[in-house]
Amino acid sequence: MSSEDRDHDPLARLAALLGRLPGIGEKSALRLALALVRAEPEYVAKLVEAIAGVQTRLRLCEICCDLSSSEICSRCKDVRRDHKLICVVAQPQDRMALERTGIYRGLYHVLHGVLDPRANVGPADIQVGALLKRLSPAHGSEPVQEIIVATSPNLEGDSTALYLARLIAPLGVRVTRIASGVAVGGELEYADVTTLHRALEERRVL
Amino acid sequence: MSSEDRDHDPLARLAALLGRLPGIGEKSALRLALALVRAEPEYVAKLVEAIAGVQTRLRLCEICCDLSSSEICSRCKDVRRDHKLICVVAQPQDRMALERTGIYRGLYHVLHGVLDPRANVGPADIQVGALLKRLSPAHGSEPVQEIIVATSPNLEGDSTALYLARLIAPLGVRVTRIASGVAVGGELEYADVTTLHRALEERRVL
Repeated sequence: MSSEDRDHDPLARLAALLGRLPGIGEKSALRLALALVRAEPEYVAKLVEAIAGVQTRLRLCEICCDLSSSEICSRCKDVRRDHKLICVVAQPQDRMALERTGIYRGLYHVLHGVLDPRANVGPADIQVGALLKRLSPAHGSEPVQEIIVATSPNLEGDSTALYLARLIAPLGVRVTRIASGVAVGGELEYADVTTLHRALEERRVL
Repeated sequence: MSSEDRDHDPLARLAALLGRLPGIGEKSALRLALALVRAEPEYVAKLVEAIAGVQTRLRLCEICCDLSSSEICSRCKDVRRDHKLICVVAQPQDRMALERTGIYRGLYHVLHGVLDPRANVGPADIQVGALLKRLSPAHGSEPVQEIIVATSPNLEGDSTALYLARLIAPLGVRVTRIASGVAVGGELEYADVTTLHRALEERRVL
């Protein structure tokens, strides 16, 4: 796209803005911009309203730090859940992925990041303090018994899990890590070396 | 995403709306929605403004029917271009792709579609009438000498080219077709610069 296009053309301007979103390349941005030009005005109005409002309507749940439209999110409020169990995830989308499985009935804690010394992300930059607060007996009637660390199985995710284990285990709370290995239903043949390494290391007695 | 999420959560609502755009699946929509939650408020304001305004700020150029922010687009106004040559494309993004090659210096005509009997798209549904108007001597001082049909080389694109050739050749205007250097069955929009270059150079009389 020429600079002349970008400066004067509302379409090119929209495409340039869309192209700054993650995973949207130049061609995708243009395709989306053209789709918006041709979309039903009613849809465009709804989308504009949703984008304009999403930052003001969302806050972090005061307990689990997940994105929420109220002070306390619906999961933390849910008395049918097991409040003795907290699954720690890096991002809201990880919580959503786990929730979709339908098998986990405990609570969550969203860190909003993982420890990454190379990117200067330390414990104070993610929601570690809020997690510790949930472990103090004064907080609620049911003390937390187990923290499941479900960060991704990569260098940063593993370091974060180890850090939390060292921090929390001394408080008498069990800290566990989700298993990693060859994906269920996946082909061993196509698993990468690191995954195979991990799958072998974490083998268990049948 | 559960229906509970979708109904009450501004994030899920935004993701659902974004997921209706072409090429945006459920996971991409969620990733984009989360990016918008975390984006700089200034960026979000600009994006909202650009989306809200793009439909009202754009119109069809009165000559070539390309999307334009003024009555006559900058290309049709450009006296340095060869006004005796018109390249006919299906969509604005095809015009942009050709323009990026930098080798074509004639004018364009955007049909906004191709003939497709199976989808009930006939000549009256695309900008064929506006193209014919440009061929009448009354329109301008320089009569058009050649129409290059650069629709995609697939069934609909080829039929449209043939239709235009039969319609226009009797008027004494040469009608050519870009060469199928563009991969057969492929989309013009995604062709690389070299392929488009070749396709323009090897155009032939229909």
